[in-house]
Amino acid sequence: MNVKVTQENLHNALTSVSRVASQRSALPILSNILLHTEDKSLFLTATNLEIAIRVRVAGKVEKDGRLAVPARLLNDFISSLPKGTLSLAKTKQFSLKVSMKNYESTINGFDPEEYPSIPAKAAGEMIKVESTKLKQALQQTTLAASTDEARQTLTGVYIHTANDHLYMVATDSYRLAEKKLAANKKSLSHNVPATTMQEVLRNLTDSSEEKVEITLSENQAVFDIGPAVIISRLIDGKYPDYKQIIPASSETTAEVDREEFIAVVRVASLFAKESAGSITLKVQEDAQEISVEAVASQVGENTSSTPATVHGDGEVSLNSRYLLDALQVMTSEKVVFSLSGRHNPCVLKPLEKPADYLHLIMPLKS
Amino acid sequence: MNVKVTQENLHNALTSVSRVASQRSALPILSNILLHTEDKSLFLTATNLEIAIRVRVAGKVEKDGRLAVPARLLNDFISSLPKGTLSLAKTKQFSLKVSMKNYESTINGFDPEEYPSIPAKAAGEMIKVESTKLKQALQQTTLAASTDEARQTLTGVYIHTANDHLYMVATDSYRLAEKKLAANKKSLSHNVPATTMQEVLRNLTDSSEEKVEITLSENQAVFDIGPAVIISRLIDGKYPDYKQIIPASSETTAEVDREEFIAVVRVASLFAKESAGSITLKVQEDAQEISVEAVASQVGENTSSTPATVHGDGEVSLNSRYLLDALQVMTSEKVVFSLSGRHNPCVLKPLEKPADYLHLIMPLKS
Repeated sequence: MNVKVTQENLHNALTSVSRVASQRSALPILSNILLHTEDKSLFLTATNLEIAIRVRVAGKVEKDGRLAVPARLLNDFISSLPKGTLSLAKTKQFSLKVSMKNYESTINGFDPEEYPSIPAKAAGEMIKVESTKLKQALQQTTLAASTDEARQTLTGVYIHTANDHLYMVATDSYRLAEKKLAANKKSLSHNVPATTMQEVLRNLTDSSEEKVEITLSENQAVFDIGPAVIISRLIDGKYPDYKQIIPASSETTAEVDREEFIAVVRVASLFAKESAGSITLKVQEDAQEISVEAVASQVGENTSSTPATVHGDGEVSLNSRYLLDALQVMTSEKVVFSLSGRHNPCVLKPLEKPADYLHLIMPLKS
Repeated sequence: MNVKVTQENLHNALTSVSRVASQRSALPILSNILLHTEDKSLFLTATNLEIAIRVRVAGKVEKDGRLAVPARLLNDFISSLPKGTLSLAKTKQFSLKVSMKNYESTINGFDPEEYPSIPAKAAGEMIKVESTKLKQALQQTTLAASTDEARQTLTGVYIHTANDHLYMVATDSYRLAEKKLAANKKSLSHNVPATTMQEVLRNLTDSSEEKVEITLSENQAVFDIGPAVIISRLIDGKYPDYKQIIPASSETTAEVDREEFIAVVRVASLFAKESAGSITLKVQEDAQEISVEAVASQVGENTSSTPATVHGDGEVSLNSRYLLDALQVMTSEKVVFSLSGRHNPCVLKPLEKPADYLHLIMPLKS
């Protein structure tokens, strides 16, 4: 191997792939990054066997080659170098020599044949989503996925088609987030691990010019994001019929400024630590306000309120963390908070019509 | 108690004092902040018995009072409130009622009589130091103080007078930092805990207009920093005669760009993890450069170099962390690195004359 690349390009590519290379895997080779050349380009690959990421690095390949190099040392080393052109060469048996003006290092690596093979991209349905739209959709849904491996189906973000539109959904059974994306007529029903989605998120930029290609086949999701390709397994099993728990209408609705709602809930949550974050919201038509109280507390008492456009009275107890999480991933200036008594799910939506996001939170008993 | 203050003023004061209020003290009352009024002002006080901090909060006292309130909850709560005027009132027995538009909270507190009394300011020698100069002096010295409680004398920053100037010094016996401050004829010799100095640092602003008043008496150091007063015990015992280990001259000197020196040392340190950070520096008159090598490593090899104006050849092994620490707290564009063979201390100084800072590092055996 003999390759010339800039420090900036290599550093950016390493930032993406080295997150996936685990230091704690039972298979020590997975703490390495595979460097290989193909079609006159340098590629970096890392995998944790659930997900693989491969990034093309712009540069000049003078001689082909292949080797595995410790991810952490390579990443720390390249990020410490000054800007400029680097020369990468394979020396000795499996060592990588990195040289640039004033710097010469050799990093001991491993036989690339020990590195697991990365599954090829399978044929499947391909959809294109604008990078910024996908970023928002993932930020607004992944938070609601379960982290409990015993409930594997709920640890995914469910991509599917309904009413000729693409939807992304996640739920841990205490809360549910549903994002409506662009019109789409392909029949899709794929459950992508939320951990994959978090890796996709980290690779998304804010440039709305770029489109991400998502290829969904029976067992695989592939995300083409500029120079990076992320390949992930899918989660087996039928996703629950979540639509049935979304209330068709509500007894009480309040239109409220999102930032102000966040402020009052955050203050109340400080007094709700003993009760695991439980707070009580009172929506009052007479006062045209939402008031928030921390449930009985040894440390003190708190009542905060914020003005709202209210129809109908109502009261409900919620986990303040879930409510804050939801309000913080929303982007609209105003939100609609709806409830139907103390025992039914609450719903948050942006005020704008048509609302493309819905966040449902189950009430707490109190 | 009945006091009106702005959220900003109270928040700033709480940020200073709540760091000192320990959550982990054997004395639970110390996790509280004492609020009291005096001379028509509100004061917040916290102590960990080693150091006490008292901050005056601008505001309007309508009724005097005194109570102790949990530091963490009060700080989290006030920092979550919007900007505006707050009303603080003592209610029930020892509770603090905080109210502002849309918010009303009561925080359960404690009897202020349980709070330990803060020592009064003793008479002593008073010196004034510009805030920015003191900040730099503390940043450049505290890092060299020992954290080993078994060597108590070395856990301080030693303030003393020599050659009609004020000096601050710290050493853990592996490295030593000495800062020369303004002309001063008072005879001073006081050892202030480095932990106190870190607290002083956190309260210093970048405004060079402000002067800090330091009052040093036999057992106490008092720092008056704008609205804050920090009162600390001193460390007993004679500070070592450190001057004798500073070499009067050196066989080898190298003038080098500080940022470039940091870069090559940082890269070498990545390869020196197995050898506890040990790196070897070679200063070469012929090549007019400093080259840095990580000592024999399983992970690979590294040689980096940086151009320097060199007089005399020399080689020495140092702990790369100590060298990085020193270079990072220095501020001059160029530094002078001096050594005298493999067994004598190395010295770093700013290139500017007269140099007001000296950092000495003991060599490693290799």
